[in-house]
Amino acid sequence: MKVSVVKNILEANDRIADLNKKMFDEKCVFVVNIMSSPGAGKTTLIENTIKALKDEIKIAVIEGDIQSSYDADKIAATGVQVVQINTGGACHIDGNMISETFDQFNFDEIDLLIVENVGNLVCPAEFKMGEDYKVMLLSIPEGDDKPLKYPLMFHESSVLLVNKIDLLPYIDCSVEKIRNESLKINPELSIFEISGKTKQGLQDWYGWVKARIKEKNGS
Amino acid sequence: MKVSVVKNILEANDRIADLNKKMFDEKCVFVVNIMSSPGAGKTTLIENTIKALKDEIKIAVIEGDIQSSYDADKIAATGVQVVQINTGGACHIDGNMISETFDQFNFDEIDLLIVENVGNLVCPAEFKMGEDYKVMLLSIPEGDDKPLKYPLMFHESSVLLVNKIDLLPYIDCSVEKIRNESLKINPELSIFEISGKTKQGLQDWYGWVKARIKEKNGS
Repeated sequence: MKVSVVKNILEANDRIADLNKKMFDEKCVFVVNIMSSPGAGKTTLIENTIKALKDEIKIAVIEGDIQSSYDADKIAATGVQVVQINTGGACHIDGNMISETFDQFNFDEIDLLIVENVGNLVCPAEFKMGEDYKVMLLSIPEGDDKPLKYPLMFHESSVLLVNKIDLLPYIDCSVEKIRNESLKINPELSIFEISGKTKQGLQDWYGWVKARIKEKNGS
Repeated sequence: MKVSVVKNILEANDRIADLNKKMFDEKCVFVVNIMSSPGAGKTTLIENTIKALKDEIKIAVIEGDIQSSYDADKIAATGVQVVQINTGGACHIDGNMISETFDQFNFDEIDLLIVENVGNLVCPAEFKMGEDYKVMLLSIPEGDDKPLKYPLMFHESSVLLVNKIDLLPYIDCSVEKIRNESLKINPELSIFEISGKTKQGLQDWYGWVKARIKEKNGS
């Protein structure tokens, strides 16, 4: 008997992601996939975003972690619905994991779905999940050589949030170099400098989110 | 015709890693596999270690990166032999990649082989390469919740270097919590607090390396 081989696991994932995207579009749910290294500040960004926008926008969150519900518990404290995906060792979230959460949500009641990916600057960039945009954080303690060394993440993202800029006086890192190297890889990238701690620069990020939701709703 | 399935890609890797280990043992080469998130300070640690020890120990380095030779160029400037592995997208180094470098080295002339893994707190922990010890860095800007969220890396490592402690006054992170949570996962873990920038604590790390090399050489 002939053995069929699925040549491209990424193509198989893309098909599921495309189905997810179609459903999100029909329901007018704007979906962002938040990616970064471990500890770059994804959860704090999401907490800040919820607190700033939840009175005007209906928000839900999917938390991706290898194990534990540590971050999901923090998000749940903000009062929005959160569903935890435990990948059980897998280093990224894929389209199928996202579709498995669908029966937990009433998407008619959600404008913005934020997905926090597993902390990893490599693998998540390869896996679509049906999101409108990929958004990455790079925290400045990670250094200004990261675009050069992990280019796919910068290539696939639409927004780069350069986080923890409150630490700039204490760290040898050039935001200018991060900007230049990132834009060489992806000239379309929107770059915001932020601090989750001092909240510097977050208004620009909130503005970007609100403008994209308006666009998606055609208003 | 019956289709044979390799059930466990990790088992296949383990076989190659065991062969590597046997060769390293025969040649009395002490091998450490350095792992961490992107930007936690692996390259700077290796540079410092070479500068401190190269007059008494013969050192060589394998640099693992998805692409580029940025880190390898920095290591080469210290005057020791360095071989670059570009994984071409893969998020970790495996046993086979290491064995592919063997014809580049004269292991009779090497006491210490340092392997810098790809920056990733997830996948590298699963892949043996024939090393004597796995050593991980955690930089304090990554936060004190990392043992809880990425336990395998802490479980597999023999040494945890808590790095960038010069930033403690500016960051909300408890080294005590990192210690406690790490030791819950792995009670055998040796933990050193260091700063690649100020060089605080590095003497303890150098002492650990020298003692292990002596052990391996049976002296």
